[in-house]
Amino acid sequence: MSYKIDGLQYANWSKKIFWEMLDGSLDCVHATIAYHENFRETVLNLEKWNSWFESYPDRIMQAHCAEDISVAKKEGKTAIIFGFQTPAPIEDDIKLLQIWHQLGVRIIQLSYNNQSLLATGCYEAEDSGITRMGREVIAEMNRLGIIIDMSHSAEMSTLQAIEFSSRPIAVTHANPNFWHNAKRNKSDTVLKELANSGSILGFSIYPHHLKNGTSCTLNEFCEMIGRTADLMGGTASLGIGSDLCQDHPDSIVEWMRNGRWTKTIDYGEGTLEKAGFPKQPEWFGRNTDFPNLEKGLHKTGFSQQEIDGILGDNWYKFYKNAFGH
Amino acid sequence: MSYKIDGLQYANWSKKIFWEMLDGSLDCVHATIAYHENFRETVLNLEKWNSWFESYPDRIMQAHCAEDISVAKKEGKTAIIFGFQTPAPIEDDIKLLQIWHQLGVRIIQLSYNNQSLLATGCYEAEDSGITRMGREVIAEMNRLGIIIDMSHSAEMSTLQAIEFSSRPIAVTHANPNFWHNAKRNKSDTVLKELANSGSILGFSIYPHHLKNGTSCTLNEFCEMIGRTADLMGGTASLGIGSDLCQDHPDSIVEWMRNGRWTKTIDYGEGTLEKAGFPKQPEWFGRNTDFPNLEKGLHKTGFSQQEIDGILGDNWYKFYKNAFGH
Repeated sequence: MSYKIDGLQYANWSKKIFWEMLDGSLDCVHATIAYHENFRETVLNLEKWNSWFESYPDRIMQAHCAEDISVAKKEGKTAIIFGFQTPAPIEDDIKLLQIWHQLGVRIIQLSYNNQSLLATGCYEAEDSGITRMGREVIAEMNRLGIIIDMSHSAEMSTLQAIEFSSRPIAVTHANPNFWHNAKRNKSDTVLKELANSGSILGFSIYPHHLKNGTSCTLNEFCEMIGRTADLMGGTASLGIGSDLCQDHPDSIVEWMRNGRWTKTIDYGEGTLEKAGFPKQPEWFGRNTDFPNLEKGLHKTGFSQQEIDGILGDNWYKFYKNAFGH
Repeated sequence: MSYKIDGLQYANWSKKIFWEMLDGSLDCVHATIAYHENFRETVLNLEKWNSWFESYPDRIMQAHCAEDISVAKKEGKTAIIFGFQTPAPIEDDIKLLQIWHQLGVRIIQLSYNNQSLLATGCYEAEDSGITRMGREVIAEMNRLGIIIDMSHSAEMSTLQAIEFSSRPIAVTHANPNFWHNAKRNKSDTVLKELANSGSILGFSIYPHHLKNGTSCTLNEFCEMIGRTADLMGGTASLGIGSDLCQDHPDSIVEWMRNGRWTKTIDYGEGTLEKAGFPKQPEWFGRNTDFPNLEKGLHKTGFSQQEIDGILGDNWYKFYKNAFGH
């Protein structure tokens, strides 16, 4: 059985997009349901998802465990796994982790660009590592079976998360910085420690994470995957986390970057002149483009088994271990 | 298989009480987890329950469906079903019903003594029946499989709930007012409509609901059950909802009555002189006394099958239909 799984998206979800997920043969998408929202605001987001599940029961279903992805595949649906890109929805209350687990949240980033209560973000000048609360939260996430995601975290925080966690962790959406030296991309050290710990990396197709940005070719992207496999000792720890932000207006990327933490505008990976969402590369702009990745990987010389792994089976195996008790 | 089920308790939960539940052979207790708490405050209550389930995994477990009660019985545990005595935890947001359902809440009272957003309570001078939002909430509770409980509601509101609900409802804890004419007890009309609709009545052992209060004898209580069975056409719609408020200080009954709705003190069923919790009758003061009910029902002449039904099997059957989709 080969699964097609996208390890992270944050789309302007709609009927159209849910249809496109199926057209793109996606069996599962890890969907970000919160950035800077507090507990109650995130519940409102969950209410929206409940409405979508109720409205489109033949197209999407919530996944609480890896087996739900199998069910979705069999029934011709896309399974949705909930995740947060910041720990804001747990506020300062560690016991909210279990509440969120009960509501189906399975993946949480410990920090997002900035310092959080748990860890340092990749844009801070100083990285103080995992905090006191962060260590407690890691232990509780390990107990519950919630994946620790360090995609937007700083280097030492990421390495400590790998060290302190009793389970493998994930970088759901980032690329190696040997290929494109952005703050969001990961060092060789982090990549090797991910592989050594049985953790996983999802390759991002967000243009600011790509060499040459929007102009990056499918071939360049797939060759980068090959070089990363060489560095990490094979393809077993590799997946896709496209970071697709389909159909959002530019006000959303401003919210993602600025939340409520600044009164001036932070442009993150953008600039004043290019403040909005960057244009996607022509080979990956929507869910229906997912099959392009398979073609690209074939051309680059990966075996079918390696391709199946990268496009979903590696995530499936990872989820199966991560969500179990 | 005969189950022992208490259809409502609000104890000062503790290790001691969980042990006593097992000593009393209780397979399941419907536990009130909120009165006047808003959404976030009720989540805090749920966090406490999560801690208890984590601390005492050999004694208690959360029940999401009737089958969980079977599992608890087999494993020698007591299954806990969550319920609210007021709709406060859904605030003015109908979509919170599904969130609570996801968190395991299975029984909600539409009103508690006072007017709510949904229905009139039994202490109001005028009963305006089910409100506009109330009708919507009933439909959503029907869809989700959350039981509508009218124990503390007024007469017309209760009759309309039975009428508007597409599923049977429950009065989890009250007695007939032909026996003891308290505002909380139910008229012959309500009792007959409960029976006609396949709904269920849980007999309360809270002294203010008993003829002669604390002095009420086990024999008088069981004879009342017999008269109610005569009125309702048999014992199939009857169970126990003891309303046991074990180990609470008197400040709690003041909170139950007054919440945050009044600045003066409302004594509810009590008086200035007798403001606190009334003393329980000597034959039912704690969970370990549950077996006394079986002895009393035997003496009153019920058959073993009728007794099994009243002490839990009727609740089990009711839950099985109520929680399913």
